[in-house]
Amino acid sequence: MKNFTSVNDVSNVPDLVDQAIEIKKNPINLSIGSGKTLGLLFFNPSLRTRLSSQKAAYNLGMNVITLNVDKEGWKIEFEDGAIMDQGSQEHIRDAVEVISQYCDILGVRTFAGLQNREEDYQEKVLSSFITHATVPVVSLESATLHPLQSLADLVTIREQGIVRPKVVVSWAPHPRALPQAVVNSFLEWITKTDTQVVLTHPEGYELSEKYTQDVAINKNQDQALQGADFVYVKNWSAYEPYGKKISADSSWTITKEKMALTNHGRFMHCLPIRRNVIATDAVINESLVIKQAENRVYSAQTVFKTLLEAQHEVIESH
Amino acid sequence: MKNFTSVNDVSNVPDLVDQAIEIKKNPINLSIGSGKTLGLLFFNPSLRTRLSSQKAAYNLGMNVITLNVDKEGWKIEFEDGAIMDQGSQEHIRDAVEVISQYCDILGVRTFAGLQNREEDYQEKVLSSFITHATVPVVSLESATLHPLQSLADLVTIREQGIVRPKVVVSWAPHPRALPQAVVNSFLEWITKTDTQVVLTHPEGYELSEKYTQDVAINKNQDQALQGADFVYVKNWSAYEPYGKKISADSSWTITKEKMALTNHGRFMHCLPIRRNVIATDAVINESLVIKQAENRVYSAQTVFKTLLEAQHEVIESH
Amino acid sequence: MKNFTSVNDVSNVPDLVDQAIEIKKNPINLSIGSGKTLGLLFFNPSLRTRLSSQKAAYNLGMNVITLNVDKEGWKIEFEDGAIMDQGSQEHIRDAVEVISQYCDILGVRTFAGLQNREEDYQEKVLSSFITHATVPVVSLESATLHPLQSLADLVTIREQGIVRPKVVVSWAPHPRALPQAVVNSFLEWITKTDTQVVLTHPEGYELSEKYTQDVAINKNQDQALQGADFVYVKNWSAYEPYGKKISADSSWTITKEKMALTNHGRFMHCLPIRRNVIATDAVINESLVIKQAENRVYSAQTVFKTLLEAQHEVIESH
Repeated sequence: MKNFTSVNDVSNVPDLVDQAIEIKKNPINLSIGSGKTLGLLFFNPSLRTRLSSQKAAYNLGMNVITLNVDKEGWKIEFEDGAIMDQGSQEHIRDAVEVISQYCDILGVRTFAGLQNREEDYQEKVLSSFITHATVPVVSLESATLHPLQSLADLVTIREQGIVRPKVVVSWAPHPRALPQAVVNSFLEWITKTDTQVVLTHPEGYELSEKYTQDVAINKNQDQALQGADFVYVKNWSAYEPYGKKISADSSWTITKEKMALTNHGRFMHCLPIRRNVIATDAVINESLVIKQAENRVYSAQTVFKTLLEAQHEVIESH
Repeated sequence: MKNFTSVNDVSNVPDLVDQAIEIKKNPINLSIGSGKTLGLLFFNPSLRTRLSSQKAAYNLGMNVITLNVDKEGWKIEFEDGAIMDQGSQEHIRDAVEVISQYCDILGVRTFAGLQNREEDYQEKVLSSFITHATVPVVSLESATLHPLQSLADLVTIREQGIVRPKVVVSWAPHPRALPQAVVNSFLEWITKTDTQVVLTHPEGYELSEKYTQDVAINKNQDQALQGADFVYVKNWSAYEPYGKKISADSSWTITKEKMALTNHGRFMHCLPIRRNVIATDAVINESLVIKQAENRVYSAQTVFKTLLEAQHEVIESH
Repeated sequence: MKNFTSVNDVSNVPDLVDQAIEIKKNPINLSIGSGKTLGLLFFNPSLRTRLSSQKAAYNLGMNVITLNVDKEGWKIEFEDGAIMDQGSQEHIRDAVEVISQYCDILGVRTFAGLQNREEDYQEKVLSSFITHATVPVVSLESATLHPLQSLADLVTIREQGIVRPKVVVSWAPHPRALPQAVVNSFLEWITKTDTQVVLTHPEGYELSEKYTQDVAINKNQDQALQGADFVYVKNWSAYEPYGKKISADSSWTITKEKMALTNHGRFMHCLPIRRNVIATDAVINESLVIKQAENRVYSAQTVFKTLLEAQHEVIESH
């Protein structure tokens, strides 16, 4: 593993999930990362990702350097060849090359602008990091994917010990237009495991085909939920017209009645969750959401450990 | 000790003070907190508390995770059962349960809104943390109390070695309306020690009876100061009408002349201090304020150590 | 070395450069700073300095406490004797004395207001830290100097192994009015080494004589560049009228054609750099700027190590 920015960086997904479960049993291993530094760069705010990544690094004995680029850094230029005589103060190329030298792994959090689909799906910021970084890059959520969340989700599902579970992925309403990153990412990860996946959403919420080509889609939520072992719920805005909120249909909110259609299904959500909008209190209070958040630590720790060991092997072999 | 949010969490106050004095003699003990993480959550800015808590954790070998909730996190919902379709993004219940999983001790800084007395005195935010946290909660100042400051103050008094000292607690003017937390807290701590306490303030600055029932009150500042060994000074706004500034009387400013009424009394203040408003430069420059701030480290370190050891005992006994 | 705020704090500059080069060969030495804390205070944003200082401290096993004074702290009063009944909340004297107690080395980043030359050149903020701190103070750039940058620059030059190189220091255009700190500092450091220094800038960009008295000045950039081994480029605003941008002359931008006038000269800049304004992409992409930034770590690490060892000797000799 060279970087960790999508499922495609992982050679064997079930194996990585198993490693995370193993690490969780005995997480403190301070020698692996001793003298190593994790750099965390945030282009937008983050709570779970920030804290769980720090905790994961500390469990490995790493140090952590955090920078809120939007508040503590410079205005960044992304265009190659730009004549920088206006507002932007530092070119992404220089910033990334410099910061690479100050850390052993570089985590970066970017976000979808939801204005320009092509720009978001090209992952302009993350791609710049991958191009210019001289150390492994870990996505702490990007414009279109959230792989550390997906790995934690798979760990949480695996912990329940259900053989070939039915996983229903459902859209739910939300007052704001949100990115597609979490659902895209979950779909590309869950389809790498031995699982039956059904996606359900209102008309108009079709995702990029890239992420749904191997997934059964049923736009009748009640039908989709039948027999589900896991109900993975998330709001997202439309892919076309891009970034728009086209429904606030509260009949898609997950209730106890909806959960009764499942096979004692467990509710999942990446948090933060709008209570009594995405799902009712009663559903959330019996759900796996806190475990998912807990597993963010072991998800990140597994990734950092794998990347550190890969660096070590490179050095050893020279 | 399960949490540390008021003097009521402490079984023996003089004993805790002695422990802090002992720790100060040899503060670096990196094994106690090795592999442990302190989470610090700030709902409003802090300088001394932030830095001294970090230093205390580092002295114990702990890692520290800091989050400025107001700037780096989400807008938090506090009402149970709220339909979260407006501005708030995450329920306090979920936030606290999640963050608990990322740390071994959770410090939280909240503040008095000074708009609604009942709300402030119910300690809505801190109470939510205590209810939902799965690790010990330490108050880094709350709406109505500041126990880490009070412990440091008691350590500072104890270091002077005076048997049964007279401690005068005096109001002083300030340009803004400030919370009652520091003075409330100092009163509930100092009255647990072998001390003679006299409270003095202008008419209208009466505190909640909860904190003054065991305290002599003399509204003549000059009379109160006579024979004082320690003069603990603080501004606070009125309890009734709540949160209002009802006096700016500069005759309450502590001067060299006022200090001459005491028994070579030592001036104390929790900082930050408005020089030449709360007290004159001459008084502050000969005071104990810097020592009080220094003792914040050992106050926090004693609390963290006690909480870590209590966790360890729980684990050992299982 | 007691503090590190200008070249005058260093007894032997070439020796300090050699130490940094030595440390770079084997930077991880976690025992030197074990149990020690670096405090970093920022009065304005910083990227390289913040991250490289943290990395340097971590390489020595130190802990780091960071405070963005402008965002996380109080409004600071700098006037002695001020009656603090207005906006400022804490006197610099109290803040510095307190923070000194929480760390073993105190780094502080201040900046030139560019409004009042006397005020900037008196280094009001940094001087307050030096006066009131009880631990060594390290400048993380001040109003008029940037010694950690200069040390890193000298390390970078030294690594090229050129005997008595010609170093040309050139002004270049920039859309905003910038401080003189980097160029002042570089001049006072480079003139302590065995180097031929030529300064070039447009009419009106004369620096304080304090920094140029030992330096040859040639206002014809092309002539100055001839035979240069290193071309150190920086924008600065005028010293008289103070802080003003009086030229945007793009004929001073460093191009491949300009570099062809040199003796295979290497381009240097402290970053962040306005690409295609200060210099063209082609020049920057072949330059030493990334190495300069890398050497910021070893520059800071050398200073912290020297200061820690000096403290240790003081303790040992007591």
